[in-house]
Amino acid sequence: MPAGELPDVFDGVEAAVPPALADHLRGIGLIDHHVHGAFVAPVDRAAFEASINEGSTDPVPAFMTQFDSPLGLSIRRWCAPLLGLEPLAPTDEYWARRAELSSKELARTMLPAAGVSRWIVDTGFKGDLICTPERLTELSGVASSEILRLERLTEDLLDDGTAPEDFPAAFRAALAKAVDDPNVLGTKTIAAYRIGFDVDWSRPTDAEVVEHARTLGAGTHPVRVADPVLIAFGVHEAAAHGLPIQVHVGFGDRDMDLHRSDPMLLLPLLRTMTPVPVLLLHCYPFQRQAGYLAQAFDHVNFDVGLAINYLGVRSTGLVAEALETAPFAKQLFSSDAFGPPELHVLGAVLWRRAMGLVLGEWITAGDCGVADAIHLVDLIGVRNAERVYGL
Amino acid sequence: MPAGELPDVFDGVEAAVPPALADHLRGIGLIDHHVHGAFVAPVDRAAFEASINEGSTDPVPAFMTQFDSPLGLSIRRWCAPLLGLEPLAPTDEYWARRAELSSKELARTMLPAAGVSRWIVDTGFKGDLICTPERLTELSGVASSEILRLERLTEDLLDDGTAPEDFPAAFRAALAKAVDDPNVLGTKTIAAYRIGFDVDWSRPTDAEVVEHARTLGAGTHPVRVADPVLIAFGVHEAAAHGLPIQVHVGFGDRDMDLHRSDPMLLLPLLRTMTPVPVLLLHCYPFQRQAGYLAQAFDHVNFDVGLAINYLGVRSTGLVAEALETAPFAKQLFSSDAFGPPELHVLGAVLWRRAMGLVLGEWITAGDCGVADAIHLVDLIGVRNAERVYGL
Amino acid sequence: MPAGELPDVFDGVEAAVPPALADHLRGIGLIDHHVHGAFVAPVDRAAFEASINEGSTDPVPAFMTQFDSPLGLSIRRWCAPLLGLEPLAPTDEYWARRAELSSKELARTMLPAAGVSRWIVDTGFKGDLICTPERLTELSGVASSEILRLERLTEDLLDDGTAPEDFPAAFRAALAKAVDDPNVLGTKTIAAYRIGFDVDWSRPTDAEVVEHARTLGAGTHPVRVADPVLIAFGVHEAAAHGLPIQVHVGFGDRDMDLHRSDPMLLLPLLRTMTPVPVLLLHCYPFQRQAGYLAQAFDHVNFDVGLAINYLGVRSTGLVAEALETAPFAKQLFSSDAFGPPELHVLGAVLWRRAMGLVLGEWITAGDCGVADAIHLVDLIGVRNAERVYGL
Repeated sequence: MPAGELPDVFDGVEAAVPPALADHLRGIGLIDHHVHGAFVAPVDRAAFEASINEGSTDPVPAFMTQFDSPLGLSIRRWCAPLLGLEPLAPTDEYWARRAELSSKELARTMLPAAGVSRWIVDTGFKGDLICTPERLTELSGVASSEILRLERLTEDLLDDGTAPEDFPAAFRAALAKAVDDPNVLGTKTIAAYRIGFDVDWSRPTDAEVVEHARTLGAGTHPVRVADPVLIAFGVHEAAAHGLPIQVHVGFGDRDMDLHRSDPMLLLPLLRTMTPVPVLLLHCYPFQRQAGYLAQAFDHVNFDVGLAINYLGVRSTGLVAEALETAPFAKQLFSSDAFGPPELHVLGAVLWRRAMGLVLGEWITAGDCGVADAIHLVDLIGVRNAERVYGL
Repeated sequence: MPAGELPDVFDGVEAAVPPALADHLRGIGLIDHHVHGAFVAPVDRAAFEASINEGSTDPVPAFMTQFDSPLGLSIRRWCAPLLGLEPLAPTDEYWARRAELSSKELARTMLPAAGVSRWIVDTGFKGDLICTPERLTELSGVASSEILRLERLTEDLLDDGTAPEDFPAAFRAALAKAVDDPNVLGTKTIAAYRIGFDVDWSRPTDAEVVEHARTLGAGTHPVRVADPVLIAFGVHEAAAHGLPIQVHVGFGDRDMDLHRSDPMLLLPLLRTMTPVPVLLLHCYPFQRQAGYLAQAFDHVNFDVGLAINYLGVRSTGLVAEALETAPFAKQLFSSDAFGPPELHVLGAVLWRRAMGLVLGEWITAGDCGVADAIHLVDLIGVRNAERVYGL
Repeated sequence: MPAGELPDVFDGVEAAVPPALADHLRGIGLIDHHVHGAFVAPVDRAAFEASINEGSTDPVPAFMTQFDSPLGLSIRRWCAPLLGLEPLAPTDEYWARRAELSSKELARTMLPAAGVSRWIVDTGFKGDLICTPERLTELSGVASSEILRLERLTEDLLDDGTAPEDFPAAFRAALAKAVDDPNVLGTKTIAAYRIGFDVDWSRPTDAEVVEHARTLGAGTHPVRVADPVLIAFGVHEAAAHGLPIQVHVGFGDRDMDLHRSDPMLLLPLLRTMTPVPVLLLHCYPFQRQAGYLAQAFDHVNFDVGLAINYLGVRSTGLVAEALETAPFAKQLFSSDAFGPPELHVLGAVLWRRAMGLVLGEWITAGDCGVADAIHLVDLIGVRNAERVYGL
């Protein structure tokens, strides 16, 4: 294991963050309410660089390195010391050191440094390289819970031979099982990727669902659900079962029509659905719209995870924008880390730092008390997730 | 009456604002060009908390308090001292003190602290709890003018039994009367709420208007105008009468499709209408689009009222964004306060403070002279409104 | 010639920018990868004021001066000293001094102060008042290259009598000639102005192109191309010839539907085209969307030129937003100056200053090394343009 350790998250900005707030932010055990597994197999540099580009689905081109990005700078700044290097160690030095370590050593070094008290893991996109929630717990020493991805459930049922006419009942049975499973805290939809939000969100009848399941099941397998009827069915069923629903919004890869994931396009759904907690995830560059929806609907909550990592040093401005119109009881923390355990630790480090800088400025100007700021940190970092997921 | 007084608006940030600019901002008698009445009846805490949430139409849920929001912090910071409490007094203490005072005492305490020289009041949404312009003047000691809401005029005429075939003439007669009424300075449309901006904005013929008035009048009363033909008629008639037109844009409650109130969708109207002054109101999160339109069209002006209050401490960033592309002659100040007189005072306090911080930074860096900044404050705070409304 | 000189670009903010970074930014010879000619004829004050309003197509109205704007402040701040006046000299004084000088004297004074090493000039919109690339080189002492505007090429061919059935071949011949011409570095499309981005971007057949050329050619001359088939043809042909393609995005005049130039609407084109370098120009207020596309597609690059000038002191925030998600290898510098040589110098001054302020803050907080920052400046200021245009 490397001898390094994480620098203080307020390194270089100590004067801007009142000590009591800084201490609280350093110590709070965050609930990372939307995260994926860490790499459990070695990756070469090309694969690593591709894994720190969210938008692209291609290898990083030869004319550049993905380290030349805000996220790359943040990895070098915060993770190099975890590997025993100087902050901002040069890219090649970082890579050389990282390449000496096994994926297990890397995970054991990075994951605990996040200071997370619970991972809530989206297991819907597995890949061969990333670990299960159980393994994430082993590697980090921290409990994990799970999120059930609705589209994957549909796909698994249809691929496993569920007859179309049995599909609605089978889907409900799976949700009922999820409700009873203490490990499963909620569901997730990737409608943004599959259909966009500008679709008919009305609740379909079982007959319609059967018909669409038949069409899909009759095609090639494994099936890929990109059918508004089946996706709306999943969402309304999850709500009917009282399960929280995470919704991918905004920032993602280029297969998605980003502009068709503007969360305002969810208004027809949000206005009419059974009001279980909805968690708008990521939201960049629609964070202002997401905050507005969190004010407008009691059941809507949001985070700016994923984007915090990708914006690196610029995440401070993003965190500030996320504190504009949403009540403080309606925002959550997440990293949306996937793959490199650097992302698991950075998500927490950058959020702690950004919150300290933003709230520290408020406090210094007299616009917020230290106790108010600590309360706000507790809500967003822990308590809102406890409420939403019934922890 | 409470013994308290408003803290200095530059409290905690004195060093960031050059003294001459700070003094000017403290003293300037603002024209609040878009505001509503203040509460004239007692409200309980639930009603108060609901009244400081713009987006929702439900009571604030039990798991939270609306004071846990940027606006809530700003109320505690700036209004607590007006009630004789410490800045940022705890929520329960604030509420207990506030509950001791009558709505009249609260209004008499808060309203004058805004330092406003004229309220231009939208009387279109009356409610039982809020006061008339006359009463606002009594309570604040400051003159009031009025804005005529076009959709309400249509509704009143049809509800009062105007025959459909008489409707166009009756509407014109009412506008002509408004032109002659020195108290009425302009009109307002809430097309954003009723139809969105992505409609046919061409000017309808009287025959078309009569037909649509007939359809609407034949339905249940009171009528609710959500008809593009009748709304476009109102806007074009107001322009034909030379009356300024306020347009609700962006931030509002969830009945509105926020994305369909992007002011860029008004291009077909702005390009073709009689060029009376158009006042884009609120605009958040489309303030950059609004500023652009104010550069692109001589007759377009805008404000970021309402959002200044709701963003609280974050309003400084909003005010800065509003100073990006619009000529300084095309922006106005408003609070859009409605109900709690806290909103009337905060609108002015937060704007003064934000302008001081933004322009102070410009001056310190040498990018703007003190006299330039004062000129700019005069334009946005007073003179643009004088020009637009012919004061 | 005036005796004045440009103030140091870090005047007033020296303490915020580490000296080595500041020196590098002062000295770097920028490639201005998208610019137009400077005025070569005298302009009166009305014409000058109109030329510093991008959005409007009307004269500046009598109730205001366009100097009362962020751009106006920046002109007075940075260009007044070039004319021998104090920084922020009053508007009338600035104009009086400027009016004493010929357009040639003004250009000779201003252009070299930009510190540009190469102008890449869009010659598609000529106007009588602005100079050719050759003249720009004479006046500035700096090399110029050219960008071929695709819509203008189409129009010139059809106006010059090219038969519709010969048009595809003639267009290809012109592109082949451009490929062989060392002065021509790439192409540009103004689809945003002519058709918006929400069109069918599939590659048309020659038969379709001939048919549409026939329709257009049969109309009045000079022709104006606003036909998605002809514009898509031009873009795909430029890509097939391996020519970089500049794309006007966002901020422009009011003839354009700004919201229909959201670069996300280009996804269908970007996903399917031959991946020559695409340069998204200006992008305001869609700079976050543009940065995202630059992450998502290897061949997509962007700048925030034009908006840097128009935002003046607020360009620092824009430059910061432009550094959020795009890899540093995918952003370029441009001024998009057109007309007043003030715009040529300001584009460079404001960018240097903004980069110093943004990166200086990163360095001070320990989030970026000085060498990293200098590398990043080199990429965006020079090297990315060298790569993209094969310099």
